[in-house]
Amino acid sequence: MADPNTRLPLNRQSVLDAHELIKSHIHYTPVLTNRTIDEIASSPQTAEALKGTEWEGKEPARPKIRIWFKCENLQRVGAFKVRGAFHALKRLEEAEGGIEAGHGEGGWRQRGVVTHSSGNHAQALALAARELGIPAHIVMPTISTPSKIAATKGYGANVRFSGSTSVEREAMVEEVMKETGAKLVPPYDHPDIIAGQGTMGLEMAEQVRQLQSERGIANQDGQEAKGLDAIITPCGGGGMLSGVALSCEGRGIRVFGAEPEFQGADDGRRGFEQGKRIESVKSLTIADGLRTPVGKIPWSVIFERRLVENMFSVTEEQIKKAMRLVLERMKVVVEPSACVGLATVLFHEGFRGLVEREAGERGWDVGVVFSGGNVGIEALGGLFGEGGIGKEGERAEGKVGMDGVRVAENVAG
Amino acid sequence: MADPNTRLPLNRQSVLDAHELIKSHIHYTPVLTNRTIDEIASSPQTAEALKGTEWEGKEPARPKIRIWFKCENLQRVGAFKVRGAFHALKRLEEAEGGIEAGHGEGGWRQRGVVTHSSGNHAQALALAARELGIPAHIVMPTISTPSKIAATKGYGANVRFSGSTSVEREAMVEEVMKETGAKLVPPYDHPDIIAGQGTMGLEMAEQVRQLQSERGIANQDGQEAKGLDAIITPCGGGGMLSGVALSCEGRGIRVFGAEPEFQGADDGRRGFEQGKRIESVKSLTIADGLRTPVGKIPWSVIFERRLVENMFSVTEEQIKKAMRLVLERMKVVVEPSACVGLATVLFHEGFRGLVEREAGERGWDVGVVFSGGNVGIEALGGLFGEGGIGKEGERAEGKVGMDGVRVAENVAG
Repeated sequence: MADPNTRLPLNRQSVLDAHELIKSHIHYTPVLTNRTIDEIASSPQTAEALKGTEWEGKEPARPKIRIWFKCENLQRVGAFKVRGAFHALKRLEEAEGGIEAGHGEGGWRQRGVVTHSSGNHAQALALAARELGIPAHIVMPTISTPSKIAATKGYGANVRFSGSTSVEREAMVEEVMKETGAKLVPPYDHPDIIAGQGTMGLEMAEQVRQLQSERGIANQDGQEAKGLDAIITPCGGGGMLSGVALSCEGRGIRVFGAEPEFQGADDGRRGFEQGKRIESVKSLTIADGLRTPVGKIPWSVIFERRLVENMFSVTEEQIKKAMRLVLERMKVVVEPSACVGLATVLFHEGFRGLVEREAGERGWDVGVVFSGGNVGIEALGGLFGEGGIGKEGERAEGKVGMDGVRVAENVAG
Repeated sequence: MADPNTRLPLNRQSVLDAHELIKSHIHYTPVLTNRTIDEIASSPQTAEALKGTEWEGKEPARPKIRIWFKCENLQRVGAFKVRGAFHALKRLEEAEGGIEAGHGEGGWRQRGVVTHSSGNHAQALALAARELGIPAHIVMPTISTPSKIAATKGYGANVRFSGSTSVEREAMVEEVMKETGAKLVPPYDHPDIIAGQGTMGLEMAEQVRQLQSERGIANQDGQEAKGLDAIITPCGGGGMLSGVALSCEGRGIRVFGAEPEFQGADDGRRGFEQGKRIESVKSLTIADGLRTPVGKIPWSVIFERRLVENMFSVTEEQIKKAMRLVLERMKVVVEPSACVGLATVLFHEGFRGLVEREAGERGWDVGVVFSGGNVGIEALGGLFGEGGIGKEGERAEGKVGMDGVRVAENVAG
């Protein structure tokens, strides 16, 4: 991965360049739509649902929303993280003299790369490194689930174990770097990672225009498909959100971030309120990919350059409701972190009111990113077993269905 | 639906004609592939896995298999059943004098259609009837799950309740027919239903050729994509299996059926052995769409006309293992009934040995039908909670991964 200082400024062109470099290594993941979910998104919430929020007692918003789901859960390794991983390694290769260089003893290719992660970045870097012929050392906490360790090893990575605190993990990374001379590839706080993740934004914009054309959805002057009005992505460290925001710079697509609010995981939203980045988060939200604070470089794009318009946060129950809808109605598997964008569109009155005010009858075409699908069946059982929390019945099967409007159809592609 | 006697003989042309009639009403569902699952399918089973079977102690087969998954779980209402339902209603419309006829009081359109089903056929018929402007009466056992009743009502059907035995259900259907003059649309034992379900076979054959061409997979003489060698579909009442078999008549694609063996649900396989149709089944297999015996007309196509080469049965645990792989690796939601085909390919030594003997190094391209995806999250929890039955670890993440061959990549489209 190239020195951060050599690759700035980050802008839309950085993302276009990244796409050229990585597109042969990644899947051009599909964009799906679903009539039932559009119908729910375009129906007002109940007064009941607004109880206890700042919108209690107010008239529920009546936005018109058409959602376009970018399925990075169907990406290689089951998550968007391969985009950044491949881009970082391709840039590193370039900086070190190209494909031919560094093969000899002690060359950079033999020294390899290192990161610490127990999640999707670990598998993404392991896969990208293997495919480019570079050793990868992945530091994982000893308490990681065996299936994640096995999967990371399955991609050929050298897994090293550490304690579970960040101090212990970083100490182990230092040790690996000293031992092997490996280069650190961080999960989000680097321009190459950000530009790589942003490539999904380019694809979404292109795919939605194409699907709109195919389906005969023209813009107001009848000339051509109007494309997306907005994109909403999950935000943990902010690599994806900042990258997608860059991909939309100057294109008239408004970009929003979504976070879990549980135990303060909405550091991005709070940072917007306070006007400065929040540097530490300790949350055990079910959206386990979003437990980290926004990184410095992502924050500079998201907030300081105002490329993200706003951040929204949703509750654990709203995340589960959204997840249930996706699994049961769209028939695709998503992890909890992937569902915060949809949860915002369906349940956040602030966002819904905005769409109603700004778009009126015309409505918005909103791109929602399904960031990943790495959730085991046991974990699903744990999330949805007993008690029925997250049960989306009322609007999904009751009210909408009974009104006789379009219901429950899965639209693929 | 037309009189059965006017629509025979059933042949490939019946299926081609059906496709013309219904294609504007159904989704052209995607065909997906998955490298990890191909890798598992192309690795020999362990000696352990063959214990207690007739292959115990024998050398495990080493077939080469490339699987092409037809995703009818992404079909409208989440299952292939809409194909037959639309076709039956379009033929009925035709038989009654076309789109313009029967609208008046007492006309056939006002009398409507009736069926009994607590499963996918109920929702499929309800949707098709609504879309074609025909009332649908669906007889469901009072013990049906509330979500299925709600979903069927959500499509605008008039749900009537009955006891759970077949005698009680049929009595209620008779009553509805007398009351309303509605026409019966059976779930599988009718030529129009069979020809409708068979349309997925036409699409699969076309899609696989196209995908092979795009991916540069040519046939042996290098001229063009060779297409499928075989198709395997689940078999309950046999509507889908017989329809797909008709779609392949004279096309060089071998067709197989897959069933659960639990409590004798493998009536088709046993029928093949005994040379006659088995008329009754009482099984509570987890593959709840496959608890019915093969119907008379499907049997005439499947067995008497020899359009299906053989039937295979798999255990409950094999079904769960296959289901886990699909959910965790392919990230699409499938119901247990949809997994018997994949379970056969991965775990049935008889099928695997056949592929090895017949195809050798060249291997087979096998079309596997994911027939539906209607399973609630609670049901998933029930299937996979506690105990870890169905845990596919060894071949999926262990042996294959460790051997350093290609692992764990999701291929969309």
